[in-house]
Amino acid sequence: MEVGFLGLGIMGKAMAANLLRHGFRVTVWNRTLSKCDELVAMGAAVGDTPASVVAKCKYTIAMLSDPSAALSVVFDKDGVLEQIGEGKGYVDMSTVDAATSCKISEAVKQKGGAFVEAPVSGSKKPAEDGQLVILAAGDKALYDDMVPAFDVLGKKSFFLGEMGNGAKMKLVVNMIMGSMMNAFSEGLCLADKSGLSPQTLLDVLDLGAIANPMFKMKGPSMLQSSYNPAFPLKHQQKDMRLALSLGDENAVSMPVAAAANEAFKKARSLGLGDLDFSAVHEVLKGTGGSG
Amino acid sequence: MEVGFLGLGIMGKAMAANLLRHGFRVTVWNRTLSKCDELVAMGAAVGDTPASVVAKCKYTIAMLSDPSAALSVVFDKDGVLEQIGEGKGYVDMSTVDAATSCKISEAVKQKGGAFVEAPVSGSKKPAEDGQLVILAAGDKALYDDMVPAFDVLGKKSFFLGEMGNGAKMKLVVNMIMGSMMNAFSEGLCLADKSGLSPQTLLDVLDLGAIANPMFKMKGPSMLQSSYNPAFPLKHQQKDMRLALSLGDENAVSMPVAAAANEAFKKARSLGLGDLDFSAVHEVLKGTGGSG
Amino acid sequence: MEVGFLGLGIMGKAMAANLLRHGFRVTVWNRTLSKCDELVAMGAAVGDTPASVVAKCKYTIAMLSDPSAALSVVFDKDGVLEQIGEGKGYVDMSTVDAATSCKISEAVKQKGGAFVEAPVSGSKKPAEDGQLVILAAGDKALYDDMVPAFDVLGKKSFFLGEMGNGAKMKLVVNMIMGSMMNAFSEGLCLADKSGLSPQTLLDVLDLGAIANPMFKMKGPSMLQSSYNPAFPLKHQQKDMRLALSLGDENAVSMPVAAAANEAFKKARSLGLGDLDFSAVHEVLKGTGGSG
Amino acid sequence: MEVGFLGLGIMGKAMAANLLRHGFRVTVWNRTLSKCDELVAMGAAVGDTPASVVAKCKYTIAMLSDPSAALSVVFDKDGVLEQIGEGKGYVDMSTVDAATSCKISEAVKQKGGAFVEAPVSGSKKPAEDGQLVILAAGDKALYDDMVPAFDVLGKKSFFLGEMGNGAKMKLVVNMIMGSMMNAFSEGLCLADKSGLSPQTLLDVLDLGAIANPMFKMKGPSMLQSSYNPAFPLKHQQKDMRLALSLGDENAVSMPVAAAANEAFKKARSLGLGDLDFSAVHEVLKGTGGSG
Repeated sequence: MEVGFLGLGIMGKAMAANLLRHGFRVTVWNRTLSKCDELVAMGAAVGDTPASVVAKCKYTIAMLSDPSAALSVVFDKDGVLEQIGEGKGYVDMSTVDAATSCKISEAVKQKGGAFVEAPVSGSKKPAEDGQLVILAAGDKALYDDMVPAFDVLGKKSFFLGEMGNGAKMKLVVNMIMGSMMNAFSEGLCLADKSGLSPQTLLDVLDLGAIANPMFKMKGPSMLQSSYNPAFPLKHQQKDMRLALSLGDENAVSMPVAAAANEAFKKARSLGLGDLDFSAVHEVLKGTGGSG
Repeated sequence: MEVGFLGLGIMGKAMAANLLRHGFRVTVWNRTLSKCDELVAMGAAVGDTPASVVAKCKYTIAMLSDPSAALSVVFDKDGVLEQIGEGKGYVDMSTVDAATSCKISEAVKQKGGAFVEAPVSGSKKPAEDGQLVILAAGDKALYDDMVPAFDVLGKKSFFLGEMGNGAKMKLVVNMIMGSMMNAFSEGLCLADKSGLSPQTLLDVLDLGAIANPMFKMKGPSMLQSSYNPAFPLKHQQKDMRLALSLGDENAVSMPVAAAANEAFKKARSLGLGDLDFSAVHEVLKGTGGSG
Repeated sequence: MEVGFLGLGIMGKAMAANLLRHGFRVTVWNRTLSKCDELVAMGAAVGDTPASVVAKCKYTIAMLSDPSAALSVVFDKDGVLEQIGEGKGYVDMSTVDAATSCKISEAVKQKGGAFVEAPVSGSKKPAEDGQLVILAAGDKALYDDMVPAFDVLGKKSFFLGEMGNGAKMKLVVNMIMGSMMNAFSEGLCLADKSGLSPQTLLDVLDLGAIANPMFKMKGPSMLQSSYNPAFPLKHQQKDMRLALSLGDENAVSMPVAAAANEAFKKARSLGLGDLDFSAVHEVLKGTGGSG
Repeated sequence: MEVGFLGLGIMGKAMAANLLRHGFRVTVWNRTLSKCDELVAMGAAVGDTPASVVAKCKYTIAMLSDPSAALSVVFDKDGVLEQIGEGKGYVDMSTVDAATSCKISEAVKQKGGAFVEAPVSGSKKPAEDGQLVILAAGDKALYDDMVPAFDVLGKKSFFLGEMGNGAKMKLVVNMIMGSMMNAFSEGLCLADKSGLSPQTLLDVLDLGAIANPMFKMKGPSMLQSSYNPAFPLKHQQKDMRLALSLGDENAVSMPVAAAANEAFKKARSLGLGDLDFSAVHEVLKGTGGSG
């Protein structure tokens, strides 16, 4: 199967490499072309522009850093729109808001092409291991065509129905994750200030009904105030905000998420936005006079 | 090894049976004596009173339903205190507050006996399977003596230092659990009201970084509004309150736990206190005009 | 002084009447023309369209129900834009979001006209009594020209600087008000459930450091579950949401407002959106099983 | 009318002086006797011990700093209990919890005396001006006897029924006040960070429906980060906690008060407990890295 692949950031590079390893023929494009070298060494072809990739491939996947990059790759000169059309499919796996997805979807469909949004759950490591969870929505026929690729990229893919549902599902999951991170951090602080060993708390948690990979992975580094950004706090806070907005539209009261969001905002105000989202722990610890 | 065992409720019976199955000689006592029959059939001896059990056994374990039962078994006529003394150990595995533990501890020590509090994490099923997590504190020598029994009853035991730390650790864990349950319920509600399938959300969650046994176990029944009480909501709310009190003593600000606690209180006010703590979902769903 | 006046709803009619009573020459327009009759009886002239009012008057004031009405009166056929220009001023006193204000401002300025946004604090009664508080921003020269009118309409007007600041100031005030309403309602509930007379609480509050007109005015009707809409709950909740958004942009953590907002959202989900914003009391009371 | 007066702190001294100025014959006692001098100069008699004051006077009022002082004056050697009895009344106007009031009440009644708890709303200035609000409960006959004194000390007194209701009413009022302070502080922060003048916000608030003495009095000093303790933050936080406990007993969900309480706790953790309760503003501002 031949696919185009736009965007070779941390995630995109790992995903394209996976496809190559599993025998896909992949034509890659990246704004900074030098980032293509490693993949070329693995057998990838290179496209000069998004348009030329789409021209060459029946299916093109994009994995871009944010909504503006996702829009630019489609709508700018030499963009996807110039070559998309009848018989071609475009799959955007970037994490973008529903409005961005819908804008791309409409433009692609107007040209006669098919579109699937397919944001993923999972960061660098799962991307490398082909263990992402893929939350797809939009054109069902295109989704079905893409299943072989999704099977390589993820451990599971879901087709969630109408356009926008992929983005929404991701928001819901991230909202729960953000609240849990706060609950976890509060517990670590309470243990510490109450004379209990936070390390022992980690051990106890890991044996019980709420044991989960996030606690196991983030806990030890949080105890060392180490917040290497796997998922930047400012993005987590943005997702909390968008999830709360979605709740507002649908009149869903979510007091715990709202409280967690305020803690993330406080973290942003303290300049922690570029650290890992677990850095909200600094707010709750209140170390060094910080709140 | 010979042990006494006081209290044959759901938890206590499973635990005493485990000890018998692993070759311990066990003398049991229960307020309603007929509850002893099943264990006698497994080889247990029966004591007439807590005092007589303590008189017979070097080590006595108690697993009672609440602080008042825990106190009564020790301080009432024919209670533990009448026979405890030099060379004897008493281990209370009931979930009680720190004040109750300390009161029992002081009385036992004054008589020359040794005391360990050892509340457990885990409910009926882990008790039957010997998969409890044991949070012990108090007399280290007695703890060491009890390790063979703890190894049978639990998958892991922790010695947490000074008296009260077992109760505190359990509060911290339950606080995190209560906040997580609210985060989970909010997510289920948001998915549902936003046109996503809550069942698919469960599937997505189970594949990601925040997958945990509680979501897996409680999720499906919550979607069916089924709240068979494994851990009654009123007890969860009480633990949230006590954890917040502990935070108050130590000036730990815990806004997410505070918001979760208010939701549990709302659930209590709606008469849901005797259902499973996952029934807080009814508050967040707001079904049928409920809040 | 001659002014045009667009929009004769509850607020607009009271305000135009005030101007007439104070000797202003007023040309009114309303979508439903019959609403003009009462003011004509007081001496007002009538314009057929917003454009004809602007054509006739150097200054035109608008008081419309919501952003879409505010935009329609400006941008639609026969709208303000058709006649606004050099030497003419347009003052929108409607409560709209900053984006709406800015859109109108830009269009008016492009035509050579001057624009002031001037949302008010205060509802029907203060409008009738000329006791509004006017939060103006935008063109300072036009503001200065309008002071005689503002002096009649309000007890005080503020010039707040750049366009959008009027809307923002109003959001901040309404956010505080919404949080206070929740605090008040929680107190009334706590008094009631604790065996204290909520009526006595009102009396005690009214004598103390936190006595304020809102408690005095809303308290007695809240005790009777009477929520005649002076300020509809859905608008209050929208303002809370917009204020929280403003806080999000500026990384201001506001946990109390966030908690209050969730209660208003719950009220909306219970169908209370069209009642007075004090109807959030129903959520907190949890009457009839409502949360 | 003759009254005894125990406790000449800031509040007590102002109150006793008021009674003297209005023609009451007052016998005072204070642990540090030198504090009596000023009142002696105004005509007061001095008692050596609480017991001797009670022995001399039919009615004795106490105004002490905290529950332990309130208990000590009654139960210690030479305390109130030694002389209280049939025909004598004891009125404790200290701010204490319900449990303390009840303990004193029972002891006094057992001796045949009458007891009224009468905590006040208002601090130093209202005490000096006889403008306190008195929240009395307990023995109705004694309350009636005390009305002439209450009329001098306060602008209004309430009889609230059974013992403990005075303390409860005060908690409810203080809870509302604490939530309002947070709402106010959040608004000031939002104004500031959004480019609005916080001073103008104070002016706008003071003209509107939520204008109140607390905003007027505290606002200007908060803008200067000046927190001279009229009511110490740690006491406000304690009252929030007790009010939330009262809500817990009665299953009243109070999410706004809970969020406010967590902010006060954060302030305590930053060492602001001895400043005025308006110092919670420092937490919300997050000045200097503080959260």
